[in-house]
Amino acid sequence: MERGQFITFEGGEGAGKTTQAKRLCDALQSAGVETLMTREPGGTFGAEAIRDLVLSGTEERWSGMTELLLMYAARLDHIEKLIKPALERGVWVVSDRFADSSLAYQGYARGLGPDRVKAVHAAVMGNFQPDMTILFDIDPIMAQKRVETRGEEMSRFDREGIDFHNTLREAFLDIANDNAERVFTLDAGGSRDNIHNRIIHALTTRYPQLAGKLGGAES
Amino acid sequence: MERGQFITFEGGEGAGKTTQAKRLCDALQSAGVETLMTREPGGTFGAEAIRDLVLSGTEERWSGMTELLLMYAARLDHIEKLIKPALERGVWVVSDRFADSSLAYQGYARGLGPDRVKAVHAAVMGNFQPDMTILFDIDPIMAQKRVETRGEEMSRFDREGIDFHNTLREAFLDIANDNAERVFTLDAGGSRDNIHNRIIHALTTRYPQLAGKLGGAES
Repeated sequence: MERGQFITFEGGEGAGKTTQAKRLCDALQSAGVETLMTREPGGTFGAEAIRDLVLSGTEERWSGMTELLLMYAARLDHIEKLIKPALERGVWVVSDRFADSSLAYQGYARGLGPDRVKAVHAAVMGNFQPDMTILFDIDPIMAQKRVETRGEEMSRFDREGIDFHNTLREAFLDIANDNAERVFTLDAGGSRDNIHNRIIHALTTRYPQLAGKLGGAES
Repeated sequence: MERGQFITFEGGEGAGKTTQAKRLCDALQSAGVETLMTREPGGTFGAEAIRDLVLSGTEERWSGMTELLLMYAARLDHIEKLIKPALERGVWVVSDRFADSSLAYQGYARGLGPDRVKAVHAAVMGNFQPDMTILFDIDPIMAQKRVETRGEEMSRFDREGIDFHNTLREAFLDIANDNAERVFTLDAGGSRDNIHNRIIHALTTRYPQLAGKLGGAES
């Protein structure tokens, strides 16, 4: 049995990651590739319990480093109980956010420093990493308009100022540069169909065996 | 204000750490040194919440590494909210167990490997460490007899076989050798008064300013 591929979607808020992750999963399934969609933080019973602990109480309850350790405990449970077993069964896994978000948010944008996050990451994760990461890059002003027009309740991260989102964008682009063999940076402007088609193109470039099978929307 | 000293008591089960930690705190208080006694895991509201999460559910709920991350999250909360603020106020802190227990139990005795535990430790703790550690060293057979005669309900660790406790003893002695400037290895055989007197002697050797002030039991 050939091992499945682990694909992560990363980027700031309002870039359309969740919608596109679902569309990619549908396309893979239609092509006969068994695919599991998941998300962080959460994904397993244990990880959800840790997530509840992180989110409960006041914002000052946990320091940045304590929160990072709790996030990595949840991530490890997610990997060991769900992601790795699926990959070993030959299932492809698409995760809406993964470890790059910890580095961008906690490491760069929230001041813990990238080196401390990378040290925890290396100690915990060893060599495990996504096979392919699609980074949704978008001008924060445009992303903010999208979030507003979604009409959803805004999360804590959405309420941050534009400077924070600019810092976050630079952080993700730095991560992409440092991991050019893994990260595909996607201009997340344009229509949903257009973005979907460009994701399909990136996938078939990386996995030529999928060429002609993944379809793609009319554009 | 002079910074307080951070003293930890380490060793296997049944060595008498808790009793002796209380007696040392009483002796320090009587000598006019404001002292706080604490213990791991736990010590703060947040750390207790994490501890409840670690201990709930079946033994297979968390992997060794996930448990280690949760323990370090609890430890960091304990340090940031209780230990460091007390030390900065000039208070001495005595903790019944600390990080050496993670290295001995999870790293050596439970097979996670000392290198992985040390890597997490270094990433999380930086340079923070106890000023003095008293390692209670005792023949596991003798310790087991003590635990049995205590008449208390045995913890999960107490129920392990003698091989496990021998491995644990060797692990603590290795840690003492690697940290000779910090760790004082105490032969934990003998009467309670005799052990207390030897702890007082070790303290006054390390802190000459306490000589003649800490008393000591009749022996």
